[in-house]
Amino acid sequence: MSKLIEPRTLSGFRDYAPSAMIPRERVLQTARDVYRSFGFTPIDTPACESLDVLLGKGGDESDKLVYRVRGAKQEKEEMGLRFDLTVPFARFAAKNINDLGTPFKRYALGPVWRGERPGQGRYREFWQCDFDTIGTTSSASDIETILVVSELFAALDLPRVEIRVNSRLILNGLLETLNLSDKTAALLRSLDKLAKVGCEKVIEEMVKEAGVTQSQASQVLTLATTEGTNEQVLAQLDELFSGVENKNATEGIRRLRELLVIAKAVGVPYGRIKIDLSIARGLDYYTGVIFETFLLDLPAIGSVCSGGRYDNLASLYTKQVLPGVGGSLGVDRLLAAMEELKHPWMTGNSSPAQVLILQFDAGLLDVYQKLARELRAAGIATEVYPDAKKLGQQFQYAEKRGYKVAVIAGGNEVAAGTVNVKNLANAEQVTIPMAELVPTVRRLLQG
Amino acid sequence: MSKLIEPRTLSGFRDYAPSAMIPRERVLQTARDVYRSFGFTPIDTPACESLDVLLGKGGDESDKLVYRVRGAKQEKEEMGLRFDLTVPFARFAAKNINDLGTPFKRYALGPVWRGERPGQGRYREFWQCDFDTIGTTSSASDIETILVVSELFAALDLPRVEIRVNSRLILNGLLETLNLSDKTAALLRSLDKLAKVGCEKVIEEMVKEAGVTQSQASQVLTLATTEGTNEQVLAQLDELFSGVENKNATEGIRRLRELLVIAKAVGVPYGRIKIDLSIARGLDYYTGVIFETFLLDLPAIGSVCSGGRYDNLASLYTKQVLPGVGGSLGVDRLLAAMEELKHPWMTGNSSPAQVLILQFDAGLLDVYQKLARELRAAGIATEVYPDAKKLGQQFQYAEKRGYKVAVIAGGNEVAAGTVNVKNLANAEQVTIPMAELVPTVRRLLQG
Repeated sequence: MSKLIEPRTLSGFRDYAPSAMIPRERVLQTARDVYRSFGFTPIDTPACESLDVLLGKGGDESDKLVYRVRGAKQEKEEMGLRFDLTVPFARFAAKNINDLGTPFKRYALGPVWRGERPGQGRYREFWQCDFDTIGTTSSASDIETILVVSELFAALDLPRVEIRVNSRLILNGLLETLNLSDKTAALLRSLDKLAKVGCEKVIEEMVKEAGVTQSQASQVLTLATTEGTNEQVLAQLDELFSGVENKNATEGIRRLRELLVIAKAVGVPYGRIKIDLSIARGLDYYTGVIFETFLLDLPAIGSVCSGGRYDNLASLYTKQVLPGVGGSLGVDRLLAAMEELKHPWMTGNSSPAQVLILQFDAGLLDVYQKLARELRAAGIATEVYPDAKKLGQQFQYAEKRGYKVAVIAGGNEVAAGTVNVKNLANAEQVTIPMAELVPTVRRLLQG
Repeated sequence: MSKLIEPRTLSGFRDYAPSAMIPRERVLQTARDVYRSFGFTPIDTPACESLDVLLGKGGDESDKLVYRVRGAKQEKEEMGLRFDLTVPFARFAAKNINDLGTPFKRYALGPVWRGERPGQGRYREFWQCDFDTIGTTSSASDIETILVVSELFAALDLPRVEIRVNSRLILNGLLETLNLSDKTAALLRSLDKLAKVGCEKVIEEMVKEAGVTQSQASQVLTLATTEGTNEQVLAQLDELFSGVENKNATEGIRRLRELLVIAKAVGVPYGRIKIDLSIARGLDYYTGVIFETFLLDLPAIGSVCSGGRYDNLASLYTKQVLPGVGGSLGVDRLLAAMEELKHPWMTGNSSPAQVLILQFDAGLLDVYQKLARELRAAGIATEVYPDAKKLGQQFQYAEKRGYKVAVIAGGNEVAAGTVNVKNLANAEQVTIPMAELVPTVRRLLQG
């Protein structure tokens, strides 16, 4: 016999066993449902793109992350695996937007690949789950984006979130009044480290890296560290920009205020949306509203859903200007958090079904399949054990998989038109007429 | 300004626009739901596997199909993209089956990649959608596999299917009685061409390639071309093997008969399952039941769901013998068929939502979002148009996207507590109290 190949996964890659996959499917389906409910529509793009499409940004750092792909018979064109869903969306939009028309609201779910050093919670393949509205600069879209996030976490049974919102327009306004617009990128990079390293270090870095004065850096930090309720922060912003008449800042403040008004009107609980002027989102890509989402019971895990407004999605691929706003759910980080929080969806169960019909007698398979069909028709997922093994073994199987109810019928029961139903949580068993199977099981599953 | 990068997809790869993606998501979700209802559980494996895992079979032909993947900083280990979901499942099972226990019923959905020459309907990236039961040799699992396929096509709103079923055990039995067991693989390869080239050519090839006599080849063809109702075919098989007492054939016939009995008992319509002894499924991997599924209204597109029983899933990776049975839904072929058949799911709509709330007045955004929230809470996906553009433009957008209902409210309506609801199918518009919005829209969507 030939030597066995070791059945391993590659470094940085992983299998999803059922107990991990069941909640992941539920999270992804919840995201789909919420995005759809707002009129976002699904698209998909290939895993492989032309290398020049992927490396378009020309950033050395991200280039190193891109996996190269080639056919066994060398392909003419160089290919790579996508490292996010934004670049493929930009390429897709540039190619198809004239057919699709604007505004265009899409969502996309799928794996992306990055050749990073694997580490605790950092994988080379992970899922993204993005939604964007392009072709409009409207405040209504900014607001809707935040409402989607709020609905999403409610639907995920994670209502204890804080969506921290800021606007680049406000920072840009301040930098304009300080004559520092040309230093925006460097200042953002420093500001992004605020939560990690604190004010002093950030000021130090701003002076060193962006070449601003200590006083200028301090003014930026004063803005970023404005504290108080949403109303207090807005009042302070009004005061800060009163008299200077900066268009960007005024518009940024107006949009934040409108967001809060609409959120209140549609019943978003007070406190779920929090103006936080320290949110920077390092990328200079963003130009308007920016946000991050923190779980109040596990803030240390970082933002689980982030995004913002940008002026032009696809400038590398088309002259058509496509402004937009969107967000991205960090599926893997979220699942890790749900695990840690012992979220009710993390049952550890390895079957999506809840009912096991035991195979007491192979000759009664027709009866078992008929009972299963009735349960399935009632929306109750049901497995029939495939072999007429010892009942103890079948019960063990049910327990290991997390089944809640077992159905047992032998020749005597079938002759009498009855069936035994066992609640696996407390081992209580009742004998009932077959016709009562569906309501009985439903009651047990609800109980 | 720097030169634009052409926003293209690679040869053999494609984008899914919303009108293609909406039915694809529906098909995949239907498959998930049906698999789950039978107690199959989801797993996922990485897109990338070690090359030695993928090339384990050593077949030159499939090796050429495997895309190679490497990091920008050359990785130590050679990687490739999976070309099906079976090899990763075998690797997964070998790695994890001791934790998971048997029997183990999994489904997996995802893209696979093959470096083939692209052609009409043939892509280098396409989706597979597999389900398998491993760790049991029971007839109950064979039967369940066929029941899953039957339910799947009913749930896909494609009840006019024929699941053509055969058993390798019967062919193996015949070859044993003819002393031709060592020629099985070559004979299968020839037999697989029957539908394409006809009996004479197949006999010719069997004589030439497998080195059997004309008479032996004729006997194989006589078996394969047995015609009649399921009952007639079974009766002919009984007769053919009466007296020879071949264990394999007897078991094969017994299992087919049991399948038909159970299918009838659970209400599978007569004719949906058809014994067809010409079904060969070229791969010598299969050892028991084999099946293919044809759409009665478009048989020429080929089988849209195929599979069968095998003796050992993961022999390359583990000494543990893992017999199983399963099937694979050809998602892309199925969608092409649904398109051609003008299936009701292929609406051409590019939004999953059905209601558009027009933005008549930007100052009333709170009202629009409140109305949208009510509709969404009632399970009706609803978009709010993001800009207060001319109504004509907003109606055009609604029409292009396939919306069924438009909701319009200006200051007068809001002051009066009313709202206008327009049926976009017939342009009829009614003015109703806001409180009646949900039932009114629901009636229009059902109508």
